[in-house]
Amino acid sequence: MAGLFFEDFVVGQTFRSPTHTVTAEAIKTFAREFDPQPFHLDEEAAKGSVFGGLVASGWHTAAMTMRLIVDSDLHPAGGTVGAGTEELRWPRPVHPGDVLHVEGEVVEVRASRSRPTIGIVKIRCKTLNQSGEPVQISQPALIVPRRGA
Amino acid sequence: MAGLFFEDFVVGQTFRSPTHTVTAEAIKTFAREFDPQPFHLDEEAAKGSVFGGLVASGWHTAAMTMRLIVDSDLHPAGGTVGAGTEELRWPRPVHPGDVLHVEGEVVEVRASRSRPTIGIVKIRCKTLNQSGEPVQISQPALIVPRRGA
Repeated sequence: MAGLFFEDFVVGQTFRSPTHTVTAEAIKTFAREFDPQPFHLDEEAAKGSVFGGLVASGWHTAAMTMRLIVDSDLHPAGGTVGAGTEELRWPRPVHPGDVLHVEGEVVEVRASRSRPTIGIVKIRCKTLNQSGEPVQISQPALIVPRRGA
Repeated sequence: MAGLFFEDFVVGQTFRSPTHTVTAEAIKTFAREFDPQPFHLDEEAAKGSVFGGLVASGWHTAAMTMRLIVDSDLHPAGGTVGAGTEELRWPRPVHPGDVLHVEGEVVEVRASRSRPTIGIVKIRCKTLNQSGEPVQISQPALIVPRRGA
C-alpha cells in the first residue's frame, strides 16, 4: 500500500511491519527522558516493583509501534498522520530482548464532513512480541488526503 | 498527592504538572528514532506538508505528557503505572517553542474484581500549550495498589 489516497482504502485491507528488537539500553534511555520510574530505569530496582523486572514504558512501546507503522507497507499519501487513537491498551509489558512487529487492518473509511479535502481511515493495530502475544492494541484514526484535492 | 493508595483517591481530585518547553532539536531527535516523517524532521520540508511547518510527533507529545505527569503532584504508591488510555486525541499540533503543562482530574475510582490487591483510577488529562489550548486529551487508567495489600 504505497502513496494511497483516501479513495484507495477499503475496510479489510491489512498491513504488516518489519521486526524490531528491544534492548535494555533503549528502554532506559527512553525512560530517563520521558518516564523516569525505577521499573523502567534499573534492573535491580525493577525486581522490587509490580513488574518484577525491567520493562519498557508503555509510551516507549507506543513510540516503537509508530516507527514500525512508518516502516510497514502502509503508506498513505502525504504521510502517516494521526488525529489520535480511540483505544490504546498494553495487555502485557515489553521486556529487554523482545522482538516486536505490528499487524494492522483497516476497520473504517469515512469522508470528512467538515473538510472536503480529507478522509478518515481507522486502523486496528496489534503490536506483537516474538511469541505472538499482543503488547499493544490501538485503533488510530489517520487523516488521509482525497485524490486531486 | 504523594504515595497515594487506592483508598486515598476520590473522584474530583485534581493535579497539575510543572511546565516544559519544546525545542526544534528535541522534536527532530524523537522523530529520527520513532516517527521519521518530513514534517517532524526538517523545517524546510515541513513547509510543504499538511502542517505548514515543523511539528512534534503526536507520540512525542504523549511521551512529554507522561514525563509531566511523573513530575506532577500526582504520586500513586508504587509508581504511575497505566494499563492504557480510553482516549488519546491531539486536537492541535505542538510547535517548537511551545510551553506545555498537564492538568488532570480523577474521573473514576474502581476496585478490581479479578485482582483484590489493586484498584483502577481513571484520570482525565489535558496537555495545554502556553495559550491554554489543549494539544492532547487522554483518559488513562492507572493501576494503584490497595493499602496493606
